[in-house]
Amino acid sequence: MSTKSAYEHAGVDIDAGNRAVDLMGAAVRSTYGPEVLRGIGAFGGLWDAQKLRAMQAPVLVASTDGVGTKTIVSAAMDLYENLGQDIVNHCINDILVQGAEPLLFLDYVAMPALDPTKVARLVSGAAEACREAGCALIGGETAEMPGVYREGQMDLVGTIIGVVERDDIIDGSRIKVGDVLYGLASSGLHTNGFSLVRSIFPQERWPKHESDLGTTLGEALAAPHRSYLPAYGALKGAVDIKGMAHITGGGFPDNLPRILPDGLGAVVRRGAWDVPPLFRLIERKGGVDHDEMYRVFNMGIGLVLVLSPNGGPKAEELLPELVCMGEVISAPNEGSPDKARVILA
Amino acid sequence: MSTKSAYEHAGVDIDAGNRAVDLMGAAVRSTYGPEVLRGIGAFGGLWDAQKLRAMQAPVLVASTDGVGTKTIVSAAMDLYENLGQDIVNHCINDILVQGAEPLLFLDYVAMPALDPTKVARLVSGAAEACREAGCALIGGETAEMPGVYREGQMDLVGTIIGVVERDDIIDGSRIKVGDVLYGLASSGLHTNGFSLVRSIFPQERWPKHESDLGTTLGEALAAPHRSYLPAYGALKGAVDIKGMAHITGGGFPDNLPRILPDGLGAVVRRGAWDVPPLFRLIERKGGVDHDEMYRVFNMGIGLVLVLSPNGGPKAEELLPELVCMGEVISAPNEGSPDKARVILA
Repeated sequence: MSTKSAYEHAGVDIDAGNRAVDLMGAAVRSTYGPEVLRGIGAFGGLWDAQKLRAMQAPVLVASTDGVGTKTIVSAAMDLYENLGQDIVNHCINDILVQGAEPLLFLDYVAMPALDPTKVARLVSGAAEACREAGCALIGGETAEMPGVYREGQMDLVGTIIGVVERDDIIDGSRIKVGDVLYGLASSGLHTNGFSLVRSIFPQERWPKHESDLGTTLGEALAAPHRSYLPAYGALKGAVDIKGMAHITGGGFPDNLPRILPDGLGAVVRRGAWDVPPLFRLIERKGGVDHDEMYRVFNMGIGLVLVLSPNGGPKAEELLPELVCMGEVISAPNEGSPDKARVILA
Repeated sequence: MSTKSAYEHAGVDIDAGNRAVDLMGAAVRSTYGPEVLRGIGAFGGLWDAQKLRAMQAPVLVASTDGVGTKTIVSAAMDLYENLGQDIVNHCINDILVQGAEPLLFLDYVAMPALDPTKVARLVSGAAEACREAGCALIGGETAEMPGVYREGQMDLVGTIIGVVERDDIIDGSRIKVGDVLYGLASSGLHTNGFSLVRSIFPQERWPKHESDLGTTLGEALAAPHRSYLPAYGALKGAVDIKGMAHITGGGFPDNLPRILPDGLGAVVRRGAWDVPPLFRLIERKGGVDHDEMYRVFNMGIGLVLVLSPNGGPKAEELLPELVCMGEVISAPNEGSPDKARVILA
């Protein structure tokens, strides 16, 4: 029987926001190293950059992204922590491909009506992924936007700031014909292709056990995005990595050309790895064209590394899960769109 | 008569995203100084941090935020550039209150169906505000989220990274009883209070000229958020600023306590400035309680500075628009919620 103020009646409950901040505070603080001078609740997070002064030529690398409509599936499956991990690991991978290691992360959660428990679970998942990566969750914002978001929906956005020594930037510029593509397994769809998946499988289907998957479809779809930071750590300094591509929206055809110098293309040998059952299920049930599958999904490979041929054996020794999956060629189609530079063999 | 792929049918048009990136590219590049090593289109933006190495004890300050449901009004009034300026200036102010000056900005735009022209106009507005602040718009993301956002709606999120010398951090810790509050005028509602405003004024009303305002209600509501960076620049180094509060959601009662040390409160003398006509119109037409107005809106003061009494005259000389608007007192209500520490006199 509380009396609501005019502002609460209009759809925004400021106190609900304050409760959410309290709940997630402990998880967030667990990501703080000694560099964090002040955390959540201040206007902006403070991070002591002395560590950068100790570097030869520090370069900051920043990226912002969302988790797309994976929010719909993970919310329906009540797997909010997963979604928090998703956004962090997606961002980690996006800067890792340039050789950068994460320093700071900030999250943004928006809903039509703020649910403090859901926000706290999302942020706890994000904090867990940050902690594993040695990254400080230095700030965040929760927004209540009645009229903008559909009922029960939400968006989750992350921004990451990392650092790399200038000489260690990985940009693909040294890639040449004959270099080899190595792949690392994805942990599922990661955060891409969910609009298509949802058009194929109605929500009633998500909680059902799928014998092909050994779990429910929804849990398989909501599996957290893998971070490739530990895998990169195993190779860093020991293997000359010429380029790395995070396979996100647009698949191999859209993401590989981002690191290939002009005039070069790539052959992806699709027989080199087993496409996981989840992708085969989507293709079969959705009647999706086989090539289109590779333009939308990662198809089981979430990160591609480009190495010189003589770097391969050492890399495979250090990281046995590497899959040799193709090679760099002369651009097959001069003047064609970027995606035509990738041949799916 | 184009053939759509399965993915486009599901609501996501990858090529539309690529067109938007092309359109806004020029505006974004105009924000680049020599520190930007690589911009939009790469996986992550690169920023040469040599400048930080030249500092004594650099501290990074980061913040992320959205523009709330101001999106609804600015979109309806077709003032997308304003909204781009809003998010940048809001973020600038959020880190400025700790003494930080902006280095990098990243934006995130999400819509149910991507409109490349609207995205380009939003980002152009953001780029303009970044350019004025000497801040690089180093990255961004556009997301198409059918099923999450209501038709015609959108969200706009920004993340800023700035830097401050450790000794120059402004955190309110030296504030004491008798210090003086100075205010700087806002440029309207900034980005707060829009849910309440929309519950009072239906959309049909926004395009109508209001004689009290000298413009349409919609244009007055969509006025871009002011950046206080130039005003701060006029005082920096010459005046000892003990604390600054950006008056956002929750108004004076929620934002002033964020910088007041334990045991201290503040008196805000509401007679010290003229509340602009826009706020008076909202109060009158909405029948909003007078005190509640100060808990939701900035009421014409967007930034509050706390100075020692003897710093006032110099500050007023350097920045004549400063309004002496209150003072710091002993906390009036021991153990009460933070907001009770602010007395609206």
